[in-house]
Amino acid sequence: MTGQPMPELDALEARVKSRVAELASLVDGELGEAIDAVCQSTPMREAARYAVLGGGKRLRPALALLCAQACGGEARAALPAAAAVELVHAFSLVHDDLPCMDDDDLRRGRPTLHVHAGEAAALLAGDSMLNAAYWTLAMRVADRALSASLIGELADASARMIDGQTLDSLGGFDAGVSGDEQRLRLIHRWKTGALMRAACRMGAISAQATDADLDAITRYAEAVGLMFQVVDDLIDVEQSTEQAGKRTGKDADAGKLTFPGVLGVEASRAEVAKLLDASLSAIEPMGEAAVDLADLARVLAGRTR
Amino acid sequence: MTGQPMPELDALEARVKSRVAELASLVDGELGEAIDAVCQSTPMREAARYAVLGGGKRLRPALALLCAQACGGEARAALPAAAAVELVHAFSLVHDDLPCMDDDDLRRGRPTLHVHAGEAAALLAGDSMLNAAYWTLAMRVADRALSASLIGELADASARMIDGQTLDSLGGFDAGVSGDEQRLRLIHRWKTGALMRAACRMGAISAQATDADLDAITRYAEAVGLMFQVVDDLIDVEQSTEQAGKRTGKDADAGKLTFPGVLGVEASRAEVAKLLDASLSAIEPMGEAAVDLADLARVLAGRTR
Repeated sequence: MTGQPMPELDALEARVKSRVAELASLVDGELGEAIDAVCQSTPMREAARYAVLGGGKRLRPALALLCAQACGGEARAALPAAAAVELVHAFSLVHDDLPCMDDDDLRRGRPTLHVHAGEAAALLAGDSMLNAAYWTLAMRVADRALSASLIGELADASARMIDGQTLDSLGGFDAGVSGDEQRLRLIHRWKTGALMRAACRMGAISAQATDADLDAITRYAEAVGLMFQVVDDLIDVEQSTEQAGKRTGKDADAGKLTFPGVLGVEASRAEVAKLLDASLSAIEPMGEAAVDLADLARVLAGRTR
Repeated sequence: MTGQPMPELDALEARVKSRVAELASLVDGELGEAIDAVCQSTPMREAARYAVLGGGKRLRPALALLCAQACGGEARAALPAAAAVELVHAFSLVHDDLPCMDDDDLRRGRPTLHVHAGEAAALLAGDSMLNAAYWTLAMRVADRALSASLIGELADASARMIDGQTLDSLGGFDAGVSGDEQRLRLIHRWKTGALMRAACRMGAISAQATDADLDAITRYAEAVGLMFQVVDDLIDVEQSTEQAGKRTGKDADAGKLTFPGVLGVEASRAEVAKLLDASLSAIEPMGEAAVDLADLARVLAGRTR
């Protein structure tokens, strides 16, 4: 699909981007308040604000808010969940960029936090952001039982994310997984899939979703989460650093497993199409309330044009 | 008091150590289960077990369990709280030891985790341990409202701990604090005091403490937490690396603020005596149930002999 004009997708993308931007401004307000409440030392507050509020697509928070809406709630019912998930995501980027990990100097089109503020500040700010995610769910969700459920979801997902990062960076054997493709799917399910799944589920749970809706959202999230990563792998192969706003071509250089590397580019594109279908089918029974979620999946699938 | 025989304190110390060791074996069971459930990749599980289960005095968990007991509960009611606090403590040690922070090679008498398993593994394992603390409170406390309360306490305390580490390592101005002594007290209250306070309060809360008991425990905890740090500063000046099981003499070398450095050794000893009195007075109204807590404070005050 490279280079072909797709006016329908362009119009869809404009609409989805505007909706996501509207939700992002709500979330940024919540994130700013959480950071200011949690980080009481000046260097920590500045480092956390730099890392969390300096750009970012706010995809995960948007998923949380749109899933709350799809389950019949107000989008803003999921604001603490959305902010908490974004804090975990931003923490993981800060630590992954450190010299002892991926050693990246560019993130969201700007110097990474350790380049900007030093390694110690980046280490501590990442710690503080992970902690602030739990602070947000504990302090900003009035219903104590709901708060504990959301924290359980996030803790499980973050554990998988860190495990996925560990397998991706350090290697290491895991029982029952063999072959590059199986291994790649496990790493992606853990490293990026688990947190996107949690974003969606936590949005649904914040809106007191029925079991049927939570199940639909979970299947949507699992498909979209994997699709997002396959698309990301394709972007790393196909786009320049300038277009992507972060270093590209690094995965292949680092010898990391990627979908284009393991399956080839064409099969990876076919995988994207299959996962888009799966995500749309999952939420079809939810009807009108899930239109934004469906459009978001279509736009995410089209990012590789 | 250096070098003088103190038979009473020796007997007390033997009794307290045996009680703490008994509680520590309970906590180690809980910690091992949490790590195995949370860390599903082999390298992560091994790194976390090395850092968490390889020694350590288990002072914070002992405080949590003894505070539950002092408030009329079963010590084991506070096991998830005790394990969660120890996970946060162990995480902070792993990250503080990293080359970009204190660059320590020895901890609890063994090579630090980054020396043993590499920097990336230590970074990720620290992240995983902080996350596992919240996982433990979310998953292992059946009462959802209690779970959320404990998580709020821990998130607040961990935020202060990370802020304190930030001030200690990076410096930075904070409103309303001026002069070395004020600054030193703030750093200690945040860096070590907050988590010991949370350990005690979470133990009391796990035992459904009355407001009066929770208040008494809080005052005990604030006195003991600061006392512990003053004693630690004195040990750093007075003991060898071999005796302490970690590098000593580093604070002065690194130009860090310490109590002996700011107040002098004799005034620091007087501060210890004052804080011991404050901790004992706070829990006196709790009577027999708080005897172990009182003895623990006495032993902690006597560590500098």
